[in-house]
Amino acid sequence: MLHLSEKPHFIYTCLMLLAWVSQYVSLSTGFELNHSLTYIWPLPHELTSGNETLTVNPTLSLSLIGKGGNFKILREGFRRYKRIIFKQSSGVSIFKNLRRIRSIYDISQMRIIVNSDSDELKLGVDESYTLFITKTKGKSIAWEAIIEVNTIYGALRGLENVLHWHIIDEQSFPLEIPKYPKLWNGAYTKWERYTVEDASKIVRFAKTRGIHVMAEVDVPGHAESWGIGYPDLWPSTSCREPLDVTKNFTFDLISGIFSDIRKIFPFELFHLGGDEVNIGCWNNTPHVKQWLKDNNMKPKDAYKYFVLKAQEIAISKNWTPVNWEETFHAFAGSLNPQTVVHNWLGPGVCPKAVAKGFKCIFSNSGVWYLDHLDVTWEQIYNAEPLEGIDNESKQKLVLGGEVCMWGETVDTSNVQQTIWPRAAAAAERLWSTKTALSAGTDTVLHRLHYFRCLLQRRGVQAAPVTNYYARQPPVGPDSCYWQ
Amino acid sequence: MLHLSEKPHFIYTCLMLLAWVSQYVSLSTGFELNHSLTYIWPLPHELTSGNETLTVNPTLSLSLIGKGGNFKILREGFRRYKRIIFKQSSGVSIFKNLRRIRSIYDISQMRIIVNSDSDELKLGVDESYTLFITKTKGKSIAWEAIIEVNTIYGALRGLENVLHWHIIDEQSFPLEIPKYPKLWNGAYTKWERYTVEDASKIVRFAKTRGIHVMAEVDVPGHAESWGIGYPDLWPSTSCREPLDVTKNFTFDLISGIFSDIRKIFPFELFHLGGDEVNIGCWNNTPHVKQWLKDNNMKPKDAYKYFVLKAQEIAISKNWTPVNWEETFHAFAGSLNPQTVVHNWLGPGVCPKAVAKGFKCIFSNSGVWYLDHLDVTWEQIYNAEPLEGIDNESKQKLVLGGEVCMWGETVDTSNVQQTIWPRAAAAAERLWSTKTALSAGTDTVLHRLHYFRCLLQRRGVQAAPVTNYYARQPPVGPDSCYWQ
Repeated sequence: MLHLSEKPHFIYTCLMLLAWVSQYVSLSTGFELNHSLTYIWPLPHELTSGNETLTVNPTLSLSLIGKGGNFKILREGFRRYKRIIFKQSSGVSIFKNLRRIRSIYDISQMRIIVNSDSDELKLGVDESYTLFITKTKGKSIAWEAIIEVNTIYGALRGLENVLHWHIIDEQSFPLEIPKYPKLWNGAYTKWERYTVEDASKIVRFAKTRGIHVMAEVDVPGHAESWGIGYPDLWPSTSCREPLDVTKNFTFDLISGIFSDIRKIFPFELFHLGGDEVNIGCWNNTPHVKQWLKDNNMKPKDAYKYFVLKAQEIAISKNWTPVNWEETFHAFAGSLNPQTVVHNWLGPGVCPKAVAKGFKCIFSNSGVWYLDHLDVTWEQIYNAEPLEGIDNESKQKLVLGGEVCMWGETVDTSNVQQTIWPRAAAAAERLWSTKTALSAGTDTVLHRLHYFRCLLQRRGVQAAPVTNYYARQPPVGPDSCYWQ
Repeated sequence: MLHLSEKPHFIYTCLMLLAWVSQYVSLSTGFELNHSLTYIWPLPHELTSGNETLTVNPTLSLSLIGKGGNFKILREGFRRYKRIIFKQSSGVSIFKNLRRIRSIYDISQMRIIVNSDSDELKLGVDESYTLFITKTKGKSIAWEAIIEVNTIYGALRGLENVLHWHIIDEQSFPLEIPKYPKLWNGAYTKWERYTVEDASKIVRFAKTRGIHVMAEVDVPGHAESWGIGYPDLWPSTSCREPLDVTKNFTFDLISGIFSDIRKIFPFELFHLGGDEVNIGCWNNTPHVKQWLKDNNMKPKDAYKYFVLKAQEIAISKNWTPVNWEETFHAFAGSLNPQTVVHNWLGPGVCPKAVAKGFKCIFSNSGVWYLDHLDVTWEQIYNAEPLEGIDNESKQKLVLGGEVCMWGETVDTSNVQQTIWPRAAAAAERLWSTKTALSAGTDTVLHRLHYFRCLLQRRGVQAAPVTNYYARQPPVGPDSCYWQ
């Protein structure tokens, strides 16, 4: 699952713009550039341009100033993007003289001004930035690129998206939990597991790219794999999920898992799942049936009891709980008021959730589930997470939208093709202004074609844009820019 | 198109074996290893093993000796594979003391003995090698890995295969030809082109991996794109291929192309195509019809005239010509005796070609065309390039086999999935002994599952092995090792 950042203000991609400028100079025929368009994806909030085409020196140097100018993350990010953007220009071997290299390019230095001295990556961190490219005053004509940001994450913000990591499901429990070492016996194989160190590396890797990682431990459904290591968690061998609601062991173990993984995931949001809970088999299991009777509960009360207890445990670990929308439909009045409601079943859920004061994430599966291969890029592009919410203070309760990449028919061999280029359609919906988005679909498609080929050039295996089903091969021999 | 090396002797993959040894120690349940099997792909010619499991130090050091011990290519290759194999072990941060690291691993040094002092990468270069892992005599028990090779390419030989690069076709002419600068006007777009420097980089990149690059310039068919830049090459606007056989300009231009690209491609084989030539429209073009009449030729004579003239030009540039089998069927008696006949239409062609003294490459499209998605890994595995050739001296005329990856429905987003894992089936057929290959299909499938997951771990997007159609997604949630 891939979470595409909260609704932003004034966000666009600085180094992408420079990449575009630098590539621009060598192009002219075949796939024709439309000079009235800006080939930046997603579109910036505001853009003005002159009428000169500038080239960027592949040896572009960096000058970092301001209170936050000393962070290693930013210096590494600059180096990383420079390498990606100028990978074709590594050996400028024909030029032996550095002065000569400098003189043939227009922009040889980038200055980044960072106002905040904090590198904390928290929800709502200011990711905005402004990029100016201006003439400098001096003897010869020279240009300078200046980025001004409030936090280092503004300077980093590019393709990176919040990552919602649905770690565990009924088929596999791949994560090491030191307190309960048999849990990952539920992994497919010993090769297909994450150690605590692996998971921590992923979170560190993400942080250097400005990406939040929100973990999900889905309870009480989607949890059959837990019982491979600890069969007591299964109500019975024929009823392996939802988890056994009657035992203290179940909640002790959940608390142990949360304690262990709290050390891995510093992000304040934590996803507790709560979706698709088939409570029927609880009632068919004698000891659970008895427990329900003793506690004067029906199965649906026990579902509520389970979810609320898991919320309490998560809150006690200083996490804000996120739950799938079923919990909101079933017992909105009992949910902890901090709860973030995660929409997936259909349209119109966030308006209801924010009306009751809950925060909300939009992931309507009809339009934003990437594993739904019949969903076209236009459907994704035209979905509006704020639809039906006119009140500005209520709009602020919508944390953003998330496109979901469920893994049933995906592995390393096809995950990139399932995500790209359609995720880019959601990215522009989330990041750009309504005015920018109102351009005709033809124009957007033209820019998206360009962007998918840029992704391919950078090693991202983005599938053709216009195939009826997603992640399908090109239909025949043709240019990348027309498919 | 991917050419999987000539028929080899005694070839197997040294660092892959070490990789397997090093990974082996951490595995035991789930997908069960069969201890009677050797998880090396492709299988070596000969293998004996002890009954101890050894671990390899991620900081493995290299000692290069022998006449060829000074080549940079080998040192770089060692570094490259070490990085790939031990990428998960980069930070052995828990061990602060180097001596302690040394003591917990069995193998900390590799010695490579290279007998030949030549680094020329030519057809038939000796790629064989022998890997010993033996106990050293000394105070404490220690192990040493020793590789003995005749040439540095023996030491490098692993997954690398000869690359046959079908550069130009009717849809696109993407290569820069300095002598005829308008030829690449026939590329899809200016973005989708190779400069001379790009192509040279590909050849240099391949050489450091021991890969020959055989270029193909397919004439006189499959050449419509040539006329975008030089319309005189088209017999008429309605007959755009085969190329105009009547004009000196056509052959001057071919000679110019060959001169220019000879500097890029040092490999002695050069592919001239000659396939699928639809000669019908020559006869419908008045000036060609007149020329045929003046020269007392029928269209099929003109086809022969064209192919033989192209062969002469290639030979004059010191290349050995390769032609698709149609040329052999049409005028075997006139082909230059040096010609390598490239089979594709079906079975039984190499026996006929070698009977007439020609060299041959096996690519029967019924079994070794990877873009045929209904060809299973078993069909590929069971195809034998030497079938029907019993005489040993005739067998030597079969240079090897090539699996072909035609690009009609392929781009960066799905090319790896189309090639892998099925190409591995052909690799083992070409590299291993008949005895090794005679093991039951179940055993081979088990090893191939293991190998495809190893490919995925190394970043190669190998598709599931057993899906009915190739490059299809996994059918459902499950382990990599069972799909």
